[in-house]
Amino acid sequence: MPTRMRHEIGEQPEALRRTIGSLVPRIGELERLAARTRQVLFIARGSSDNAAVYGRYLVEARAGRLATLAAPSIATTYRGRIDLDGVLAVAISQSGRTEEIVQTLAWAKDCGARTVAVTNGRGSPLAEAADAALITEAGEELAVPATKTYTTQLAALSVLGAALGADVDLADLVRVPDEVERLIEATEAAEALPRIVEELSGVRGVVVSARGLAFGTALELALKLKEACYLHAMGLSYADLLHGPMAVVDETTPALVLGVEGSPVLEGTAALAARVTRAGARAYGIGGGPVLAGACSLALPGPELPEWTAPLALVVPGQVMVERLAGRLGINPDVPRGLNKVTQTGA
Amino acid sequence: MPTRMRHEIGEQPEALRRTIGSLVPRIGELERLAARTRQVLFIARGSSDNAAVYGRYLVEARAGRLATLAAPSIATTYRGRIDLDGVLAVAISQSGRTEEIVQTLAWAKDCGARTVAVTNGRGSPLAEAADAALITEAGEELAVPATKTYTTQLAALSVLGAALGADVDLADLVRVPDEVERLIEATEAAEALPRIVEELSGVRGVVVSARGLAFGTALELALKLKEACYLHAMGLSYADLLHGPMAVVDETTPALVLGVEGSPVLEGTAALAARVTRAGARAYGIGGGPVLAGACSLALPGPELPEWTAPLALVVPGQVMVERLAGRLGINPDVPRGLNKVTQTGA
Repeated sequence: MPTRMRHEIGEQPEALRRTIGSLVPRIGELERLAARTRQVLFIARGSSDNAAVYGRYLVEARAGRLATLAAPSIATTYRGRIDLDGVLAVAISQSGRTEEIVQTLAWAKDCGARTVAVTNGRGSPLAEAADAALITEAGEELAVPATKTYTTQLAALSVLGAALGADVDLADLVRVPDEVERLIEATEAAEALPRIVEELSGVRGVVVSARGLAFGTALELALKLKEACYLHAMGLSYADLLHGPMAVVDETTPALVLGVEGSPVLEGTAALAARVTRAGARAYGIGGGPVLAGACSLALPGPELPEWTAPLALVVPGQVMVERLAGRLGINPDVPRGLNKVTQTGA
Repeated sequence: MPTRMRHEIGEQPEALRRTIGSLVPRIGELERLAARTRQVLFIARGSSDNAAVYGRYLVEARAGRLATLAAPSIATTYRGRIDLDGVLAVAISQSGRTEEIVQTLAWAKDCGARTVAVTNGRGSPLAEAADAALITEAGEELAVPATKTYTTQLAALSVLGAALGADVDLADLVRVPDEVERLIEATEAAEALPRIVEELSGVRGVVVSARGLAFGTALELALKLKEACYLHAMGLSYADLLHGPMAVVDETTPALVLGVEGSPVLEGTAALAARVTRAGARAYGIGGGPVLAGACSLALPGPELPEWTAPLALVVPGQVMVERLAGRLGINPDVPRGLNKVTQTGA
């Protein structure tokens, strides 16, 4: 019997179609809300935090404004007073019920920010508290590791990026669902998939790396590998990997390296993969076309999408791989030990 | 023969005395430079990035302004144009010669930011490029894992926090060097030290956690454990640990938990340690007094300092522990494999 996680991976094309279809028409409304924005402040935890990393790079690289991830403890524990005039606070939460996130959004509003909620929880406290609620149309997600709620969050953030003036073509967003559908099939048909799963089943840890717009995807895959496979997975940017943790890559600790064809950071990403293999370790690629695949020991296919929407699909081969690896390790990925679907982090 | 790393740990009291003595008199100058600051943008990598995390919490929790860590690739690869009027860009680099950091500071200045360099490299390109250079007086550091250059960076950032209007008593900063001196002795005399080192010598990974102003210290100790002991060490905030990676803490993967007495986040930190031990894993505490020690399996002493300057000393027992553990594992911490003292990360 397929796991819920595998089932929900397969529901992503339809979830993305619904989400993109319902949110693209709201760009005008979001443009008005965000008109005076000089900075975006994301408020999120866990997988949603990884989605925020995508939003951050999109806003900074393509929409010409600073973007940062909030430290919720500043709001909830230190109760700092910060002038947030001109700030657009964007809270991201699958359930819309994580108290810390709701409190931090309320704090931001109180400090003068305009507010947006990105959530799968229609009518949730978070959706109710924000000036605008971008509801992801993922449907109910039952497996603990987020899949369709994560990729639909990215879709909502790409709409928000467009509303903030990113120089992008919305047609690249509209064709994402078909590309995800194709990519699930292509990944499952890839000869490299069973080999990567087999090799990863024998390691104690793995480093997951990417740069720029794909960096959030590396963090998300590292989180998935920790949650669903109990692997010591570290998500690290290209530069951070060179600045120290390169020392942990060895025969027993491979690297998973993600890239996007046509990205200005692809060359550096491929050079990193080549450095890993030269050090005697294995490097597994996802995406990045022949440039990255050629630098890796084994590689899974990536999306044929421009860099700004590629992250909506780039995570998908990784999700398929994680679900397979969990099965190979005898773990039911739907209910990992020690985790609940809605996490409360209040002290 | 003691390692260079151990020697440099012991040089910290004097390095901190020199740094604090030379930078405190510059608070007036910094106040003028930072007068119109609505936001601080830190630019750093590696250990300096962990120092920036301290700076970020200090500025947000105590000086009432947003603070964020820059993504250097936005400047160096995507060449984004962002309006940085009202932004104080603070670049942190031990050598002052990492090209990516120098380039990103130049980009920030070009985008309208005022600029500060925190560096041990007097006359370095970074020091020359900034409106104000805060030179750390650490002397030459020979071991690859940063110790005295890291703690003196924190000292420079605490001076900067005071200049940005943090509600702090400078006397708490002036007594840090004596406290570091006391803490090195207290750690080496602690019965728990050899026991923790022995236990850590048999594990494959470790999670290092803290919250708020102490969070950067957790990241820094995780980096040290990776660099000098080749351990799979993950630095995670309290909340991020609950949001997923709690699944990796088990009999073979203990947690190192850091706290500060009197901090508003101490209670939550102790609750996290208790949760780790209830899950059947070992928790080792550093600091946090009897509240945290009581929740841990074994504990090292922490500084008797208020929360805002505690991070300048809280890392020290961890440094001593890392150096001992490297020796126990047969690793020379002064020259870890795959790393150089000045890292160039340009793609």
